[in-house]
Amino acid sequence: MNHHQYALTPPMGWNSWDCYGATVREDEVKGNADYMAKHLLQYGWEYVVVDIQWSEPGAVSSAYRPFVPLEMDEYSRLVPAVNRFPSADNGNGFKPLADYIHNLGLKFGIHIMRGIPRQAVHQNTNILGSDKTARDIAKPNSICPWNTDMYGVDETKEGAQEYYDSLFKLYAEWEVDFVKVDDIADSKLYGTHTEEIKMIRKAIDRCGRPMVLSLSPGPAPLEHASLLEENANMWRMTDDYWDLWELLYNMFDRCYKWSKNRGPGFWPDADMLPLGHIGIRSVDGGASDRFTRFTKDEQITMMTLWSIFRSPLMFGGELRDNDDWTMSLLTNEEVLNMHRTSHSARQVYRKNDKIVWTAEGDSEIYVALFNISDRKQTVSISLDELHVSKEVQPRDLWNKRQLASVNSEIRYDLSPHASILLKINK
Amino acid sequence: MNHHQYALTPPMGWNSWDCYGATVREDEVKGNADYMAKHLLQYGWEYVVVDIQWSEPGAVSSAYRPFVPLEMDEYSRLVPAVNRFPSADNGNGFKPLADYIHNLGLKFGIHIMRGIPRQAVHQNTNILGSDKTARDIAKPNSICPWNTDMYGVDETKEGAQEYYDSLFKLYAEWEVDFVKVDDIADSKLYGTHTEEIKMIRKAIDRCGRPMVLSLSPGPAPLEHASLLEENANMWRMTDDYWDLWELLYNMFDRCYKWSKNRGPGFWPDADMLPLGHIGIRSVDGGASDRFTRFTKDEQITMMTLWSIFRSPLMFGGELRDNDDWTMSLLTNEEVLNMHRTSHSARQVYRKNDKIVWTAEGDSEIYVALFNISDRKQTVSISLDELHVSKEVQPRDLWNKRQLASVNSEIRYDLSPHASILLKINK
Amino acid sequence: MNHHQYALTPPMGWNSWDCYGATVREDEVKGNADYMAKHLLQYGWEYVVVDIQWSEPGAVSSAYRPFVPLEMDEYSRLVPAVNRFPSADNGNGFKPLADYIHNLGLKFGIHIMRGIPRQAVHQNTNILGSDKTARDIAKPNSICPWNTDMYGVDETKEGAQEYYDSLFKLYAEWEVDFVKVDDIADSKLYGTHTEEIKMIRKAIDRCGRPMVLSLSPGPAPLEHASLLEENANMWRMTDDYWDLWELLYNMFDRCYKWSKNRGPGFWPDADMLPLGHIGIRSVDGGASDRFTRFTKDEQITMMTLWSIFRSPLMFGGELRDNDDWTMSLLTNEEVLNMHRTSHSARQVYRKNDKIVWTAEGDSEIYVALFNISDRKQTVSISLDELHVSKEVQPRDLWNKRQLASVNSEIRYDLSPHASILLKINK
Amino acid sequence: MNHHQYALTPPMGWNSWDCYGATVREDEVKGNADYMAKHLLQYGWEYVVVDIQWSEPGAVSSAYRPFVPLEMDEYSRLVPAVNRFPSADNGNGFKPLADYIHNLGLKFGIHIMRGIPRQAVHQNTNILGSDKTARDIAKPNSICPWNTDMYGVDETKEGAQEYYDSLFKLYAEWEVDFVKVDDIADSKLYGTHTEEIKMIRKAIDRCGRPMVLSLSPGPAPLEHASLLEENANMWRMTDDYWDLWELLYNMFDRCYKWSKNRGPGFWPDADMLPLGHIGIRSVDGGASDRFTRFTKDEQITMMTLWSIFRSPLMFGGELRDNDDWTMSLLTNEEVLNMHRTSHSARQVYRKNDKIVWTAEGDSEIYVALFNISDRKQTVSISLDELHVSKEVQPRDLWNKRQLASVNSEIRYDLSPHASILLKINK
Repeated sequence: MNHHQYALTPPMGWNSWDCYGATVREDEVKGNADYMAKHLLQYGWEYVVVDIQWSEPGAVSSAYRPFVPLEMDEYSRLVPAVNRFPSADNGNGFKPLADYIHNLGLKFGIHIMRGIPRQAVHQNTNILGSDKTARDIAKPNSICPWNTDMYGVDETKEGAQEYYDSLFKLYAEWEVDFVKVDDIADSKLYGTHTEEIKMIRKAIDRCGRPMVLSLSPGPAPLEHASLLEENANMWRMTDDYWDLWELLYNMFDRCYKWSKNRGPGFWPDADMLPLGHIGIRSVDGGASDRFTRFTKDEQITMMTLWSIFRSPLMFGGELRDNDDWTMSLLTNEEVLNMHRTSHSARQVYRKNDKIVWTAEGDSEIYVALFNISDRKQTVSISLDELHVSKEVQPRDLWNKRQLASVNSEIRYDLSPHASILLKINK
Repeated sequence: MNHHQYALTPPMGWNSWDCYGATVREDEVKGNADYMAKHLLQYGWEYVVVDIQWSEPGAVSSAYRPFVPLEMDEYSRLVPAVNRFPSADNGNGFKPLADYIHNLGLKFGIHIMRGIPRQAVHQNTNILGSDKTARDIAKPNSICPWNTDMYGVDETKEGAQEYYDSLFKLYAEWEVDFVKVDDIADSKLYGTHTEEIKMIRKAIDRCGRPMVLSLSPGPAPLEHASLLEENANMWRMTDDYWDLWELLYNMFDRCYKWSKNRGPGFWPDADMLPLGHIGIRSVDGGASDRFTRFTKDEQITMMTLWSIFRSPLMFGGELRDNDDWTMSLLTNEEVLNMHRTSHSARQVYRKNDKIVWTAEGDSEIYVALFNISDRKQTVSISLDELHVSKEVQPRDLWNKRQLASVNSEIRYDLSPHASILLKINK
Repeated sequence: MNHHQYALTPPMGWNSWDCYGATVREDEVKGNADYMAKHLLQYGWEYVVVDIQWSEPGAVSSAYRPFVPLEMDEYSRLVPAVNRFPSADNGNGFKPLADYIHNLGLKFGIHIMRGIPRQAVHQNTNILGSDKTARDIAKPNSICPWNTDMYGVDETKEGAQEYYDSLFKLYAEWEVDFVKVDDIADSKLYGTHTEEIKMIRKAIDRCGRPMVLSLSPGPAPLEHASLLEENANMWRMTDDYWDLWELLYNMFDRCYKWSKNRGPGFWPDADMLPLGHIGIRSVDGGASDRFTRFTKDEQITMMTLWSIFRSPLMFGGELRDNDDWTMSLLTNEEVLNMHRTSHSARQVYRKNDKIVWTAEGDSEIYVALFNISDRKQTVSISLDELHVSKEVQPRDLWNKRQLASVNSEIRYDLSPHASILLKINK
Repeated sequence: MNHHQYALTPPMGWNSWDCYGATVREDEVKGNADYMAKHLLQYGWEYVVVDIQWSEPGAVSSAYRPFVPLEMDEYSRLVPAVNRFPSADNGNGFKPLADYIHNLGLKFGIHIMRGIPRQAVHQNTNILGSDKTARDIAKPNSICPWNTDMYGVDETKEGAQEYYDSLFKLYAEWEVDFVKVDDIADSKLYGTHTEEIKMIRKAIDRCGRPMVLSLSPGPAPLEHASLLEENANMWRMTDDYWDLWELLYNMFDRCYKWSKNRGPGFWPDADMLPLGHIGIRSVDGGASDRFTRFTKDEQITMMTLWSIFRSPLMFGGELRDNDDWTMSLLTNEEVLNMHRTSHSARQVYRKNDKIVWTAEGDSEIYVALFNISDRKQTVSISLDELHVSKEVQPRDLWNKRQLASVNSEIRYDLSPHASILLKINK
């Protein structure tokens, strides 16, 4: 499985969805990339990802306009809408934008929907490298339940693999580094589209360029853990995640369930971080233009869980509007070091909405205590359970300070929805 | 519920599906109509129904060609393919064919798919009587799982009811008497499309012409018994039915479950009769050109169940190829009289694949004994259970003969899959 | 179906569950019976029903004590706990209490659980009329999910029917008029216990005494409409119903779905009326000792729906604590006349939580307008839709007054959760 | 997770179920142990497991006698039936038998059902170490769907953990090495009993003796992969497995799905090997006394899959009746070496019922080619896909011979249901 050779640590970056829905423009992408290069690259943030419907000239929010025409090349492949991405003019596609981002030392990612454009099928356009046409390879009973752009592709048809090959050939020409494929990891109508996942894996392996493959939306079922690990670099554990406590609350169980199926090159994904300034041209998640609705305690709790679990970290807000608090969440070197280098993370126990996770470093143990109930609680863990047999002095990673020595039991009072993340020397 | 004023007895007729799949031509329809007028009308057979995809010029069998263009008028309404229905030329639609059939003393029916043509949506064509267009009213997440012609129509959208009104206005102009709407009573993806059923009911009520409304495919769920009765004249109890014993075997339970929800104007439908010469240009049901695979015992069993249950009777074979045996099934006056006039049919018991049904006539009781096991069995019913308190002399309706008198218990040996249908004077 | 000869109108009476849970005592039953005879019998209220666990000497509330011993006779049949029902001493069973109630001109009902006592099975006690024992007929995989008293009975075993026969023989000796069988119409573990329903039907038919058969809990599935009609007199459309708006709100859809499967002798049941003083020794429904939590508007709405739908009416409160308002709901002669004599009730439409029902009388039409939304709305129905073609003067049945004449449309403003019930002369 | 310190390789042994159902006797257990010590211990076979219902004095086959009394001590704990296990007399329990087996150099295992005996609950007997009684801790809605011995234990009740602690205290006294807990990994009624799994884990951790914990029946859901790994040593991937091709066919998909969730101390279990002489006093699997119905090709296919996947290997036949062929399956040192020492097993591909698996050894690669279709097929794999870049000479492990050298593609014709297992030097 060659694709386990890349994304050796969980990918970190920025994605346009939480702030711009389906509407992001080239200038906004560049603006966020500039910011990332200047302020965040040094901390490991490197991917800049253009999310859904970059082919839709008239996109106005996160609510799709059904059945509208998309920009497409002669081979049934969607291309960037030039009014939104001027550098894509003259058939350049995303190559100029990718160049811009690469020149900043960053990596470039795009979102695509599983399948072939419905407009290609109804116009019956050509497929590069095949004498079959769009109509021949579309799967009659295969749509996305929430977007009208595509039909699924039928793996039993001649020309099907050639179509996916032609897509990733194009993305390789554009020098794309990361592809988020949507409507594939779970579908309310059909479950997981396993055969299209395999075609996409093969197309990437053939395209000559390493690209991180990210599968959406979730919840991807554990039932397909083997298939996901063998074909993708990351996959969503959850349906779209927003700044709502209930969604964060539920993520603990999702992380627990997936905690044995992770490793270098394959990462279950807790979805983007809806922090900072979001909802600028999005109406999803039950709100619009806002700063995140999460409290500071909840933001720490989220960052702690994502980091100790080693989820990919994709920031969802408009980076240029970050305040100091938000930046402090993204630039904590000790936390990020745990995210990048720790291993063997596991939930030690969960009881009465008290939860403890640990992970191992080379010479340290990380311990996260969470109180996800709605009342103040004391959360504790004995050193025995951590296999530590000496007195230790925990370090509070978010507050960057040493805490009082502990002989037998780590034990802290935590506010509702709050957590504490500790480092202990072995 | 005005629609309970028509189809006061279960509709009887011919349908092109079992013999011609999606491909029937005008000459074949006329040929079957001629035959019906001459040989069957006197027995009550009167509907001539053109089944699916009469707008598809290139249809070749029962297997649809996905995503191909259909013939359509300027208002997003499908019209007959002129190469298959020459009289439809010059925008005549089905009016000339309907005239032909009406002149024979028969009634004319058509099949339609729920929804609006996908080609109309992707071309964004107009809707008669509305300033909305096809794209405005199509429901994004609503397809047929087994045919690519249509999108569903979204009842919450302006223009949606107008579209259905425009359809039935056209059918009224054509003088259609019977409409079989497909992909609506059950969908493996979405269940029953209740809101489109209601729009169609309203459109028929508004169109000024009484048309029998038949809903397919099944199994329509009992859960929607009220809605079906209040909006349709007949609805399928089963997925497509073919000449396979297992399907006939299962129909007994379906009939039992629906036996309380029937009456003048509303009839649960056991589907077409795959008798005589079928599969001429159809590959469904696991076979092609053939005479029915049912044995004679099974054919009698099927006709007995359909008739005592009072299912609609739609013959599926090429009428012109009927042999004497097949004709004998369609022209038994006593059986057809029971089908037309009896009431209160019910399953008296089912035990060890022995089944007894009864129904009431004005001065007679009908009793059907079935052995649906794979071995010879004796099936019996006491006169007490039929509330008959005197000696009776049963009449065997299929064999047209009086049987020996019975004092206390009706009791016959029946071959595997065989049945006997009796009439007893009260 | 002989059992359609009784319960020709929907049964009306009192049941001990809503006020006394599993704990009612003989004196309380008699007290409510006395009250009914004096104040309500003249309006048609006649059944006095002792609900669950009358064999449990130590019952303390609606929460069952798991696995405790019950009082049982030598033939594995539960008998009344003598400490709670003193007249049952000396093996009298419920006969003395039934006599008392019959002497008041009322009818006597009891509750039983489907199956055979687990204590009988584990002690392996005898079955009257069979040489099989309790262990022989119990069904291994058949329990009630919410009560530990019984195992199901396996219809394939010799002795099974004999056991049920012996039960109803005993109840006939006691002169029971009404039996509510629980854990049978629906089970979260197993669905509907169809075979035990049939055994009970047969046992009643054999016992020589007409008894109304009522099946609980719901929701009984429409899928079994035929079986229910053919074997029972009433069956629950809903899980336990309490004085909570959401449950009342949902009942409209349940009534709609069952509106075609009703008639003399077989009545879908909306469950008991949690009105007046309830929860005296019950903790179900999320509350304890109280007057009903329904507002007056909601109480009228409930009584209107139950009455026009013709649900059985079983009062759940302590009758002796009824106030004038509560009594007014139970003694409205015009409403009760509709409940007793109307037919063809149907929901005319439902839109935006506005609902209209009608029913037919000999010379009148009943119309109920409901606003089940949370804001004030105007609800209307045209006379056309009621097939009325002249000016009418509606009578408001709950307020007992004539309203202004109407030419074309009945139309009233209704408060949230409120309704109006009208009578119109044909 | 201390329990990952034992069962570091997949357990191997003998289990009484496939040959003796619920009826095995002490002499039979000893006879099989003697045989194992003499002929199989040297190959790694070491566990001797007494399967279900050793407390049932009257067990006659694999069909349980419902509701019969079991032998039990004063603390609600089941003990061996002395008529079947004479050495258990005088309250010795399984200690003497365990001693016997330990003296042979083998390990001793027992089967238990989740929960507390129903007879204890109905007699309300005591619990060691608690003032609560059986009735207090039984879970009202918790039975086994296929056996009547036990009720589940309610983890929220005081005394519940004490009960499980008392069980494993007893088993530790008996010196049990392996416990197969049944009705716990999956239940058709309730899914996985996660809380009882956790109580059992804790009870073992507290009992002072390492015992392998095996959970049945399957299919255990992937959804609970984390919980299973953290609490058990092995768990069933499948419902009961027998000598039927369809069950073996389906095992390939089960192994694929679980292939990422295995490691030292935690092993997904493909169930016992129904080989040799089975069904002696069992009627499960649709047959009785017989030699395995699997063909030789199928037996090789099964052994190859179990071994490369590293399933536990529990022989199901009467060992003393093994023939040479059967012994050859259990004593192939190279195959067993792969089973004991290989790692990273994975399905390389599956297409048209051709399947290839590989696993890694220190200096070799194992490759298994399977043809699970019903016709002869050629199955192949390129050396590239195995990351082998030189000519290799595969060794056929079952036939113990070197095969012809291969340059680029391994490729063999395989009969229906046949396979070949190869070793290649890296």
